[in-house]
Amino acid sequence: MIDLSNEFAVGIDIGGTNTKYGLVNHRGEIMEKGELRTDAHPQIESFIDALYEALEPIIKRHEADGKVKGIGIGAPNGNFYTGTIDYAPNLLWRGIIPLAKLVTEKFNLPAALTNDANAAAVGEMNYGAARGMRDFIMITLGTGVGSGIVANGQLIYGHDGFAGELGHTIIRPGGRKHWSTDLDGSLEAYCSATGIVLTAKELLEQSKEDSTLRKLNPDDITSKEIYECAVNGDKIAQEVYRFTGQILGEALANFVMFSSPEAIVLFGGVIKAGDLIMEPTREHMEKNLLPIFQDKVKLVFSELKEADAAILGASALVWDIRE
Amino acid sequence: MIDLSNEFAVGIDIGGTNTKYGLVNHRGEIMEKGELRTDAHPQIESFIDALYEALEPIIKRHEADGKVKGIGIGAPNGNFYTGTIDYAPNLLWRGIIPLAKLVTEKFNLPAALTNDANAAAVGEMNYGAARGMRDFIMITLGTGVGSGIVANGQLIYGHDGFAGELGHTIIRPGGRKHWSTDLDGSLEAYCSATGIVLTAKELLEQSKEDSTLRKLNPDDITSKEIYECAVNGDKIAQEVYRFTGQILGEALANFVMFSSPEAIVLFGGVIKAGDLIMEPTREHMEKNLLPIFQDKVKLVFSELKEADAAILGASALVWDIRE
Repeated sequence: MIDLSNEFAVGIDIGGTNTKYGLVNHRGEIMEKGELRTDAHPQIESFIDALYEALEPIIKRHEADGKVKGIGIGAPNGNFYTGTIDYAPNLLWRGIIPLAKLVTEKFNLPAALTNDANAAAVGEMNYGAARGMRDFIMITLGTGVGSGIVANGQLIYGHDGFAGELGHTIIRPGGRKHWSTDLDGSLEAYCSATGIVLTAKELLEQSKEDSTLRKLNPDDITSKEIYECAVNGDKIAQEVYRFTGQILGEALANFVMFSSPEAIVLFGGVIKAGDLIMEPTREHMEKNLLPIFQDKVKLVFSELKEADAAILGASALVWDIRE
Repeated sequence: MIDLSNEFAVGIDIGGTNTKYGLVNHRGEIMEKGELRTDAHPQIESFIDALYEALEPIIKRHEADGKVKGIGIGAPNGNFYTGTIDYAPNLLWRGIIPLAKLVTEKFNLPAALTNDANAAAVGEMNYGAARGMRDFIMITLGTGVGSGIVANGQLIYGHDGFAGELGHTIIRPGGRKHWSTDLDGSLEAYCSATGIVLTAKELLEQSKEDSTLRKLNPDDITSKEIYECAVNGDKIAQEVYRFTGQILGEALANFVMFSSPEAIVLFGGVIKAGDLIMEPTREHMEKNLLPIFQDKVKLVFSELKEADAAILGASALVWDIRE
């Protein structure tokens, strides 16, 4: 066997505002990392140049320790098959961007690209809560709701490379309209941080119940404040999490009956509410499962540090690149 | 390369009432077939004996033409990993039945078992509408609603072997209670033949509209009569199919955003209604998809003869058995 322990992978996580990058070893340790502004580069060529200037010195500094095998990239609407970013609404680059190709040409290294939630799933499988699992679903609950699905030990990319958009599945037909997709009643419309704030506003309007949240200007309410109020016993804020957990639990039940995973790994700001959201989630997931699926599926939290997870996930794509 | 063209596979489809069996060649041609009563054998041992008596002469007659590679079996609640039938409500055998093991001992041949909808998917992939596809979803719409999911060219069995129960996903939270699972608003409660009859009864009660269906005793209404009335222009019967198609379309949209299949293959009595159900299905599927998934997914009908599909599907399991 070849000793791979001195190989490195570059991980790059592209977000609308910032891009994080790092050099990662086989054990999932980040040797060096950094970040740059994505939105400072309206031209993709200028972004690639900036990435190169930032990463080249890091790669050089570790040249003596081992070889860099490749570059893994997580980006919104990133397509694994084509290596392109397709019409990402939150990025400044319009149309179809051949990102993997541009990176390979600049760095002279193989590159693999997928969306951020898929990268997160690969990260959990290699370094985190899903180590050794062949069947699990990763759900990221932050500003949006993303997902990555692993079955038979492989990420499901689907026919076109875009599989795993569980945040956009409809969980309340005819329900709340999504602010950007226009779909009615999708999971993301309820269980993202944005959805949680909308639920709070709705409950405050519908109910007469006293609440600390009423002291705030409705436009200033954030999911952080709802969380703090809930922890301090605020009934409305607690109902927001109960309701959010119910919707999430119903959605997870559907996902379980699709791919029957060993575990569902949850990640992101929304799950910091802990039992406030997880108890109703678990209750409503179990309630909506066929008996053969009940009391089997582990609901677990990501084991990767939130600040590093995106870099680690992206870097882990590299280990599967075939040369 | 070894010439496999003279290998045979036995396919067995176990239903609550009847069991069908046949000897199949590599091109998906059934050399000989037959059936026996499942419910005449309350003891599994007696059922295995009956199967052996029926199949042994067939295998013997084709001995000179080639070797039988194994036996594939489709059965309700059949588990691919364990080779067992687990708590199947429609079979007389209680508890966990080690069917693959019993068959192998009796026939001295390797055996593979899965549920009937998964077997149907394998059949379509090997001989039918999904030939050459690596990503598709099979939906069987009959007395119940079953499914088989293929991703990356492999059937998704999940962690426990029970993946792909899409008929039991919730598509109308708080909706119609399922007569046997007690789940509220599952796909099967609406889009099975049983569900269609319930929808007709509900619409007849709720509306004053004239309908030929009113001439029947409500307890005598079947999906066949609803279909005939719809074809003859009956407004209520047509609304039954429109509504059923809407629910099915919404469910398919969710499935597409899960695994992004190349096609969805539909099979079973319900789809004989053709455009009456397929037009609203397609409309509501497209309407509930993110733009990146729209106008991409083929909705196709099974290409296997309904009478043979179950045998072919079960037999196709054999080609993947590793010795």
